[in-house]
Amino acid sequence: MQEPLRAILFDVFGTVVDWRASLIRELTTYGAAHGLHADWAGLVDAWRGAYEPEKDRVRGGGIPWTNLDALHRHALDDLLPRFGLATLDEDARAHLTRAWHRLDPWPDALPGLARLHGRFILGPLSNGNVSLLVNMARRARLPWDMVFSVELFRRYKPDPATYLGACALLDLAPTQVMMCAAHNGDLRAASALGLRTGFVRRANEYGPGQHSDLVAEEAWDVVAEDLEDLATQLGV
Amino acid sequence: MQEPLRAILFDVFGTVVDWRASLIRELTTYGAAHGLHADWAGLVDAWRGAYEPEKDRVRGGGIPWTNLDALHRHALDDLLPRFGLATLDEDARAHLTRAWHRLDPWPDALPGLARLHGRFILGPLSNGNVSLLVNMARRARLPWDMVFSVELFRRYKPDPATYLGACALLDLAPTQVMMCAAHNGDLRAASALGLRTGFVRRANEYGPGQHSDLVAEEAWDVVAEDLEDLATQLGV
Repeated sequence: MQEPLRAILFDVFGTVVDWRASLIRELTTYGAAHGLHADWAGLVDAWRGAYEPEKDRVRGGGIPWTNLDALHRHALDDLLPRFGLATLDEDARAHLTRAWHRLDPWPDALPGLARLHGRFILGPLSNGNVSLLVNMARRARLPWDMVFSVELFRRYKPDPATYLGACALLDLAPTQVMMCAAHNGDLRAASALGLRTGFVRRANEYGPGQHSDLVAEEAWDVVAEDLEDLATQLGV
Repeated sequence: MQEPLRAILFDVFGTVVDWRASLIRELTTYGAAHGLHADWAGLVDAWRGAYEPEKDRVRGGGIPWTNLDALHRHALDDLLPRFGLATLDEDARAHLTRAWHRLDPWPDALPGLARLHGRFILGPLSNGNVSLLVNMARRARLPWDMVFSVELFRRYKPDPATYLGACALLDLAPTQVMMCAAHNGDLRAASALGLRTGFVRRANEYGPGQHSDLVAEEAWDVVAEDLEDLATQLGV
């Protein structure tokens, strides 16, 4: 008989929060308040485009462990001249980098997580750093029991140390833990280590032109339309 | 001008939860259910008496990093024969060790923490392991934003790496963080590193015979009667 599920770990960017709409709102608001005109949506997409290459600098050993706030800032500094914003000062750059702490949940996230929280231990397992995830959760009222940032393990997902580290700290076997993500690659890594898997379809995470992760690419344990649907399928 | 306080880290055993009454309740209930007679209060006091010596085995390098559940279990195995309980089996020992996950908060803790949570980032900074603190918080509904267990740093308090590690993960300077504890020694270690300090008087933590930590031994930033009083003195 299968052991009961005890905990669910969530990818955050894209799975729980709508980073794209939130960042476009943050940057557009900032621009309006300061009389700045720029292609804010383009900057957001380019910023997110730098996400994997930035993490690869750490993964490949090119630079020592560096948390996501610092990688976001490095990418922003790189991008600003291309968007005609080279003159933004230190305070502005710090403020915009911390926009990643102020992302809004998808509409189904809070009701879905509230239902799941009654039965399961919940936490993010995110590439975001601890302070980013804590500030985000306070602002958005995400009901995390524990914040598992990869910063605790000084490795970025999909390094096995991140998934197994969270299970070990919870004193649970991987089979008692589900990884929930809108990204097939995240679930592939978790599944290979014995965790259960929950796919949530976020077809608009990257905006109207999204062409990846539109469907579950493998037979994940649960395939859900959103976090309310995940709760329903898990019987809560 | 002093920077505003942003986060409060709490010692847990004795400061937030009443370990002694909770454990006596757990062990007495277990004994009654299994027809066992023993000096349960004596066992609880002896168990807690083993707390510092057990941690000293790790601190002194005598054994590699070992989390608190494992130290509790080691001490329990040591003590059971003295209390006429040598025949307890594996399941019983595991159940009793996990009684430390089921400790009740002092009566002022939940209302005090709820008030503080509106303004400050809250977390334990406890020698308890992550799963112990997570299970305790879910059961008692403690409103932690992040669970800082010393297990994250593989050092027991008062090692500086624990206090400074929590501040670094919050991306806060020590002066923006308050350590709150019912134990002067914990506050001495935090203060030496630049953290602010809040003393909470728990004159009955060790039962009627308590003779340590009855008063604030230094001019801590706040000296409070309980966590409601701490909230009041911090203006929330």
